[in-house]
Amino acid sequence: MSVVSMVTTKFQACIDACTKCAQACFECFNACLNEPDLNARKSCVSALVECAMMCQMSASMMSMNGQFSKEHCLLCAKICDNCAQECAMFKDEHCQKCADVCRMCAEECRKMASM
Amino acid sequence: MSVVSMVTTKFQACIDACTKCAQACFECFNACLNEPDLNARKSCVSALVECAMMCQMSASMMSMNGQFSKEHCLLCAKICDNCAQECAMFKDEHCQKCADVCRMCAEECRKMASM
Amino acid sequence: MSVVSMVTTKFQACIDACTKCAQACFECFNACLNEPDLNARKSCVSALVECAMMCQMSASMMSMNGQFSKEHCLLCAKICDNCAQECAMFKDEHCQKCADVCRMCAEECRKMASM
Amino acid sequence: MSVVSMVTTKFQACIDACTKCAQACFECFNACLNEPDLNARKSCVSALVECAMMCQMSASMMSMNGQFSKEHCLLCAKICDNCAQECAMFKDEHCQKCADVCRMCAEECRKMASM
Repeated sequence: MSVVSMVTTKFQACIDACTKCAQACFECFNACLNEPDLNARKSCVSALVECAMMCQMSASMMSMNGQFSKEHCLLCAKICDNCAQECAMFKDEHCQKCADVCRMCAEECRKMASM
Repeated sequence: MSVVSMVTTKFQACIDACTKCAQACFECFNACLNEPDLNARKSCVSALVECAMMCQMSASMMSMNGQFSKEHCLLCAKICDNCAQECAMFKDEHCQKCADVCRMCAEECRKMASM
Repeated sequence: MSVVSMVTTKFQACIDACTKCAQACFECFNACLNEPDLNARKSCVSALVECAMMCQMSASMMSMNGQFSKEHCLLCAKICDNCAQECAMFKDEHCQKCADVCRMCAEECRKMASM
Repeated sequence: MSVVSMVTTKFQACIDACTKCAQACFECFNACLNEPDLNARKSCVSALVECAMMCQMSASMMSMNGQFSKEHCLLCAKICDNCAQECAMFKDEHCQKCADVCRMCAEECRKMASM
């Protein structure tokens, strides 16, 4: 169920996935900055910020029942896929976990867009 | 526990409160737009958008372990208090629930800022 | 020219258009809330917030040379077109001006996406 | 002059400074990621993302004539000061320019907050 109204209840799984993914990406961004091989991670760091911001945006759009929520979610799925690929290249726990969260979010975003 | 690392675990209750409050405010914004007494709600509608954006920002800052997270949370608490007051003036369920969510978020933000 | 580096110089016209459009939409949102026929404007008010947030996002993505900037700009163009249509329905100066700004932003976003 | 209404005209210098600073910080973030001494820049990279997001938020708040715009600008000034300090430690052109833009933005934010 959504928080205060029923309008966006059908989006709740996707809102939750986007919110979790935004947090995971911001955490992983911070964790990557503290890794000794940071230079190898520049694409990953950039992808993480892009993905975090996009997931937040998608959560906002769904929450306000925005007219373009599905288009946001479709683009969000692509950005999550890309971030998952970047993170999957690094063996540390935060990147591996973040890749999983990104993949699940991409899946929820695609489900949402096909509703 | 936080999502991919342990760094921000101590902020998790506040991150969750901010995320929930952002969603509640965007939902309530959309619900208010559909109320017949919309003209009476202009301050409320404006406060809801301000609060939604600020709560998202605070969640982002905590998730990335930002240097000014506590200052964000302190300001977020004030903005949530204001939004709770605006919402509490309307008797419909979405505003009453949103007021509650805003109050709880304000409390979590103050706890976080005093850590 | 861009602000501190040359990387995103080719996007500057579009960044400027997005930044201006975000401001116009937030201003018009506030102005609409103060109109006596606010009830007639609920779709417009919602479209303005959606458009303002999307334009900001697009400006951010271009500024950081994000990998999905073109996709963001393509979606942004659609959201700007929709907002322009909503605003064009109201005869007051702020909505008429905002519709113009949205149309120009949509055009710049399409130019950017076809680079 | 503001874009579509006169309400926020008095904030225009500060809105412009925040918008420019957000762009500068996102550009500098991207430029720092491509520097060979990236490991030395981890605080700077984090500060740049924090500052970019905060400047955008302040611009949004002023544009919509938000009730807490001055508080946002006061916090924004602190975050810009911090980012300017981080950037000033690096001799490359993008960091030096970004430090200048951050300092000017901090100044405009303090002027705005004392209006």
